Amino acid sequence: MTQPLWQKSNIKIDAKIMQFLAGDDVLLDREFFLHDITASKAHVEGLANIGVVDADEVAALKRELDALADDFASGAFVLDERHEDGHSAIEARLTERLGDAGRRVHTGRSRNDQILVATRLWLKDKLGALETHCRAIAQICLDRAAQPAVPLPGYTHLQRAVVSSTAMWFAGFAEGFIDNALRARQTMALIDANPLGTAAGYGVNLKLDREHTTQALGFARMQLSPIYAQLSRGKFEMAVLEAIGGALLDLRRLAWDLSLFTTAEFNFVKLPAEYTTGSSIMPNKRNPDVIELLRASYASVAAARTEIEQLLSLPSGYQRDLQFSKGSIFHGVRHGLMALELVPDLLARFGWNEDAMRAAIEPAMYATDVAIEQAAAGVPFRDAYRAAAEAAASAGQGRTPERSLAARVSPGAGNDLRLDELHARLRALDD
Amino acid sequence: MTQPLWQKSNIKIDAKIMQFLAGDDVLLDREFFLHDITASKAHVEGLANIGVVDADEVAALKRELDALADDFASGAFVLDERHEDGHSAIEARLTERLGDAGRRVHTGRSRNDQILVATRLWLKDKLGALETHCRAIAQICLDRAAQPAVPLPGYTHLQRAVVSSTAMWFAGFAEGFIDNALRARQTMALIDANPLGTAAGYGVNLKLDREHTTQALGFARMQLSPIYAQLSRGKFEMAVLEAIGGALLDLRRLAWDLSLFTTAEFNFVKLPAEYTTGSSIMPNKRNPDVIELLRASYASVAAARTEIEQLLSLPSGYQRDLQFSKGSIFHGVRHGLMALELVPDLLARFGWNEDAMRAAIEPAMYATDVAIEQAAAGVPFRDAYRAAAEAAASAGQGRTPERSLAARVSPGAGNDLRLDELHARLRALDD
Amino acid sequence: MTQPLWQKSNIKIDAKIMQFLAGDDVLLDREFFLHDITASKAHVEGLANIGVVDADEVAALKRELDALADDFASGAFVLDERHEDGHSAIEARLTERLGDAGRRVHTGRSRNDQILVATRLWLKDKLGALETHCRAIAQICLDRAAQPAVPLPGYTHLQRAVVSSTAMWFAGFAEGFIDNALRARQTMALIDANPLGTAAGYGVNLKLDREHTTQALGFARMQLSPIYAQLSRGKFEMAVLEAIGGALLDLRRLAWDLSLFTTAEFNFVKLPAEYTTGSSIMPNKRNPDVIELLRASYASVAAARTEIEQLLSLPSGYQRDLQFSKGSIFHGVRHGLMALELVPDLLARFGWNEDAMRAAIEPAMYATDVAIEQAAAGVPFRDAYRAAAEAAASAGQGRTPERSLAARVSPGAGNDLRLDELHARLRALDD
Amino acid sequence: MTQPLWQKSNIKIDAKIMQFLAGDDVLLDREFFLHDITASKAHVEGLANIGVVDADEVAALKRELDALADDFASGAFVLDERHEDGHSAIEARLTERLGDAGRRVHTGRSRNDQILVATRLWLKDKLGALETHCRAIAQICLDRAAQPAVPLPGYTHLQRAVVSSTAMWFAGFAEGFIDNALRARQTMALIDANPLGTAAGYGVNLKLDREHTTQALGFARMQLSPIYAQLSRGKFEMAVLEAIGGALLDLRRLAWDLSLFTTAEFNFVKLPAEYTTGSSIMPNKRNPDVIELLRASYASVAAARTEIEQLLSLPSGYQRDLQFSKGSIFHGVRHGLMALELVPDLLARFGWNEDAMRAAIEPAMYATDVAIEQAAAGVPFRDAYRAAAEAAASAGQGRTPERSLAARVSPGAGNDLRLDELHARLRALDD
Repeated sequence: MTQPLWQKSNIKIDAKIMQFLAGDDVLLDREFFLHDITASKAHVEGLANIGVVDADEVAALKRELDALADDFASGAFVLDERHEDGHSAIEARLTERLGDAGRRVHTGRSRNDQILVATRLWLKDKLGALETHCRAIAQICLDRAAQPAVPLPGYTHLQRAVVSSTAMWFAGFAEGFIDNALRARQTMALIDANPLGTAAGYGVNLKLDREHTTQALGFARMQLSPIYAQLSRGKFEMAVLEAIGGALLDLRRLAWDLSLFTTAEFNFVKLPAEYTTGSSIMPNKRNPDVIELLRASYASVAAARTEIEQLLSLPSGYQRDLQFSKGSIFHGVRHGLMALELVPDLLARFGWNEDAMRAAIEPAMYATDVAIEQAAAGVPFRDAYRAAAEAAASAGQGRTPERSLAARVSPGAGNDLRLDELHARLRALDD
Repeated sequence: MTQPLWQKSNIKIDAKIMQFLAGDDVLLDREFFLHDITASKAHVEGLANIGVVDADEVAALKRELDALADDFASGAFVLDERHEDGHSAIEARLTERLGDAGRRVHTGRSRNDQILVATRLWLKDKLGALETHCRAIAQICLDRAAQPAVPLPGYTHLQRAVVSSTAMWFAGFAEGFIDNALRARQTMALIDANPLGTAAGYGVNLKLDREHTTQALGFARMQLSPIYAQLSRGKFEMAVLEAIGGALLDLRRLAWDLSLFTTAEFNFVKLPAEYTTGSSIMPNKRNPDVIELLRASYASVAAARTEIEQLLSLPSGYQRDLQFSKGSIFHGVRHGLMALELVPDLLARFGWNEDAMRAAIEPAMYATDVAIEQAAAGVPFRDAYRAAAEAAASAGQGRTPERSLAARVSPGAGNDLRLDELHARLRALDD
Repeated sequence: MTQPLWQKSNIKIDAKIMQFLAGDDVLLDREFFLHDITASKAHVEGLANIGVVDADEVAALKRELDALADDFASGAFVLDERHEDGHSAIEARLTERLGDAGRRVHTGRSRNDQILVATRLWLKDKLGALETHCRAIAQICLDRAAQPAVPLPGYTHLQRAVVSSTAMWFAGFAEGFIDNALRARQTMALIDANPLGTAAGYGVNLKLDREHTTQALGFARMQLSPIYAQLSRGKFEMAVLEAIGGALLDLRRLAWDLSLFTTAEFNFVKLPAEYTTGSSIMPNKRNPDVIELLRASYASVAAARTEIEQLLSLPSGYQRDLQFSKGSIFHGVRHGLMALELVPDLLARFGWNEDAMRAAIEPAMYATDVAIEQAAAGVPFRDAYRAAAEAAASAGQGRTPERSLAARVSPGAGNDLRLDELHARLRALDD
Repeated sequence: MTQPLWQKSNIKIDAKIMQFLAGDDVLLDREFFLHDITASKAHVEGLANIGVVDADEVAALKRELDALADDFASGAFVLDERHEDGHSAIEARLTERLGDAGRRVHTGRSRNDQILVATRLWLKDKLGALETHCRAIAQICLDRAAQPAVPLPGYTHLQRAVVSSTAMWFAGFAEGFIDNALRARQTMALIDANPLGTAAGYGVNLKLDREHTTQALGFARMQLSPIYAQLSRGKFEMAVLEAIGGALLDLRRLAWDLSLFTTAEFNFVKLPAEYTTGSSIMPNKRNPDVIELLRASYASVAAARTEIEQLLSLPSGYQRDLQFSKGSIFHGVRHGLMALELVPDLLARFGWNEDAMRAAIEPAMYATDVAIEQAAAGVPFRDAYRAAAEAAASAGQGRTPERSLAARVSPGAGNDLRLDELHARLRALDD
């Protein structure tokens, strides 16, 4: 490894300690490296605005930062254990290429606000992806909810309860993912604040042009307090993980439905063959592994959130504990988004087994319809309920799923889905 | 206990099983009972609008619901183990007083949407309190940040780093709690949807007047899909706990600061005597217990969130597992809000020990100032940094905390706090 | 409330702060109160052994402690908000009844070791109950595994895989709960150490007879270091919750099996009617609520563990944060043990639907048998696997579940369950 | 990637789905690969014992397995995305080299028990390392506790309470890490069971020689039930993480102590220079980063445990969700052990600042001594306590830390540390 920036010459550092200190840091920094370069460009522009670097220097620095980004993208520059971290690598490269101009790049900033701004840009990217995926899922759900409804047993306690439909099922997840997209949007509004220019958490004795960097990097506002900039590390990461987690919780329940519906016993759903795999020992198996991994993906988000939450029992000010949050968000955000990205295609393409679904609808599932009909006709509901309970299965004789669905006129239910209102909420996110 | 609504006469129920089923349910239902009554009034109005109850009945039902609320508030009615749950208690009371009108009250609703709406109203109340507390904390912080600043060591890694100030410290938490208030507001927008009228999760064969109940109960919108209404149970509770948790994370760090600052070793802060307690064995002790419990309160919010998160690995549709979420939110929300409520007074009243704070500022803490001054004067920063590192303590000789703070002109730092911008963000929440 | 022990007369304490400080403390202390009294008796005996109280005093103190225990049990003494906490209540009562002897009872101890020892005794009780419940579950499972096996589909990925049997299913959970009982035993060995006599975490200037209290209270060893006694608070609580959690994880999977097996679609299991409840709106429902709450109970254990884990980011020495651990263990341990206690009866009494189970076994489930038979006969397994995969369902034609189970001769499988070995492991816990 | 074992030729698999399915699986499998090879050798020996492979084949298979291990260790064989997973890679290599003998290697096993046994061996290795590290830490603590004690303030609530000593501090952590080593040992006893031979979770129609593989792989017992073998996946992983977590919780508190003790304000501890790093912006800083990362390491263990815990809400039988547990244990176990490994050297080498420690001991810290002396002399303790509280600081005038420590004779305290008993408990782990 190259010598750390802060290295005093007379101290020998133990290899095991260095490895513990470094951890996977430099590898994780690859994830944030392009954002670090982008922020570095804005930073040097800001320095130019206040006269710390001159016009030639800023041009040279930006050119070399672009070249570094290209080299990194092409593989010509590899960020690895030879560098203490991504931040130091940038300064080292600029110094190597440009001499004094490179030595000026760190003026008025600390690695503390450098990692904050790179991470913040990364988180904003990921929130954008979250919103995109959630909206795509909601859209597919609305599309399929608009297709002719097939009767589906509605369950409570996993027991057959009343008649439901494929349209109701899709509409339910549509509304959920509209909310999830809204939450992505809200979380963006919460974290869309520029920490660059807060240095090590106490500002600096330079009139940094933070208005410029805020605008150049596309932030909605400046994160004013340097102390709060540090307090927001981990806190904002958790907010993003919680937004992803909300979507993944819905996905976990959706995947559970599909996991049940693809059992031989339910047999309501047919997955495209690409979504299944085989067994190494049992020749007969086709396993819905994708569904299971979608269900499992919430765990990675939860783990990442736990990891950060455990770190944040600290006094204010930067502390090295927070370094571990980099690995956490990488792990949780990556798993979460990778799962969500697969969902639209899956939802668009799986098929329903209408026969099995119809066969699963029993006469007793009309009992509630019967009791409410009588209640509507004047019998006190509790009496109608008792009568229906005693009549049991016979109460629903002669009824059909179609009749039940046609009568389901409470707003949002089978015969009044109000997909137009859900469409309107989804479109409102365009603004 | 009175016989459950659904009880069939021929089944004997084991006492231990009943206790396990009931848990603390009925006691927890006390917390939600007034909201349950409020929602019941809106429901019977809705039933009147569609002709299921007549004008006399609706008047009588509302009168008796009001009487029940009064009796509950006065203690004349006690919700306890004699009732299966709060929902059944309402129907039983109305039936006892009004006969058939009472037997009609459950028409078109299920305990599933009944608990959803009561909990939703409760969560909205609590989010309102969260916003209020966060704004009060932000306001006190802004007030104290506007007072003459006293120099305070700024730490990173708990090591003395650069000069900070009491004003910077307060401004940091002010910005944090403005964000926390914003998040309370966002979460309100997320969950402000009426689930009443979704019945057991599949709607009903009645044209329920959900527009009326939505408006009467003050919801911003209808939660359309009955399936999503069920999916949102636990999900919305978690969103609320996460919003509270974000504030409590900031409070945990604030409490950590005060815990350190009240040690004899730091000795920066003096607490009002009411915030300390004594020891049963050590006559000499005054302990900052309140600070420690403020710090600890995040744990209760985290626990509540974990409990719900663990429940939510389920297919769609109501399942009894979700009952446990009632105790979770009660535990986490109560602890969280109780802690936040104490903070404004504490922040308003604690005192700084200026002498100890000044004594803790060492010459080496000016080294960054020196290096940046030279950088501003043309020396490449990395060279200036190396020179300052070698000069070490001597670099800062002759400087003062005041001079350091006066030079801290980066936006948001000691000499450019921009409290007016923070005030403007806080006031923007009035709308 | 009576005046706290440590109260200085000139400080007025704010009611809201007092409430925050007290929390549910005194109510929770009820749970530990009898153990506190027991430990107090041992403590005064120890004081007598070193001459701090005389023979008359120790007799009087023990008599009054017994009387207090009786009054508490009978309800004649109520521990409530009038007392600062259970510890203070004991000293106050003894002082009221015995004067100076009561004022001597706290000699050489602190509430810090007083709560430690009371909690430790409570945890030991609960670990005993955990072991008892786990062994009872294992025993029932072994009993039912010894009954004639009924074929049951074996699932992987919730897809029908190979033939399994009721005996294999019960044997699996038997082995699991033997491990869970072993873990209860191990955890007992870990925490079975007496903290009484460590005072506030630094010992005292008295030659306390800790050997006596250790023996009198039935501890396996003394917890030597006063500093470690404090460090073990929360740590031991977590170990107990983790032991309970291990058992509840198995129970969660068992409950999931029963939740699926009681669906109309699987229909493999019939629950006794006491284990089901009805719906308030749907007259037709019988819901397996008990199964669902058993499944959900892990969440409470996880929540309790999280709560303590979040508290334990602290320097050494007692800190008030740890008070919250009392509520945590009460919540988690109570839910966990209440759930486990119901399981033996449930397992003893539920019935299998043999017809449905047989009907769910399809010819394709014999494909692995076929492939392995050919492998045993010399065909390389991977070739035999490919052949069976191509033959698909036809491979298993003419086979029966009985033949498949009879051939399942790998140790531990259907035809070689080795229940005697499991019995031997269970009996080994008797020692 | 090579074609999966179970691939049917007519299905095209989407690249994005494949990536989601594979995840980091094959990279993680590197961690377990040598154990997989070891277990494969035992498996083929077992197959030879029952005649499925002949003597030549078993010799060839073992030779090639050894060669593969060597090639893997040397880098001649790289396990990467070209292989579906490590298990398939082994079979593919053996088949490529040995033809039919390779095709026989999977006879009677599934990837389900193959990953179970490889992971189990890995977990056992790691538990061994955990015990080793904990014992080394305990040993160093005992060594330093035996050195001449230096007075150290003892804190409760982070407030100076009574005199403590460096010896008491080290003895406290010694006892803690003896318990942690014991727990590692107990957890080993819990999980030391061979799952190989349980196939896909239901056994096979072959009389596998599980006694041989159990003995050859050094397991203490066979895990009998194939169903329990599957249930134990995740459960045993959690038990290991919990054992590591217990040690890391103690380490977190130890690191907190050192983090405070290395502040300028406490200034009790001097770290060797290798344990500190510098700042990129502040030339004056030496930061105790290693201490902070030690403190933070618990978070990774907690995250790993959470991730698995979240996965385990499943019916019995293998489900793909469990794949994610591989990454979890790798992450949590690696961080945890890496942290613990650094501790002995750190504890051996840090220095105490005796002057600062003595200066921090104030007269008021003798008040408890005074009160207890009077109690020993006959004054009721509560009266002595009140008198000492009123006398306040004056009570302790003229006393010294040495006198206080010399009088601390309660067993385990300063003048009766009983290090011999702790040594004996540590040595008892040798058996």
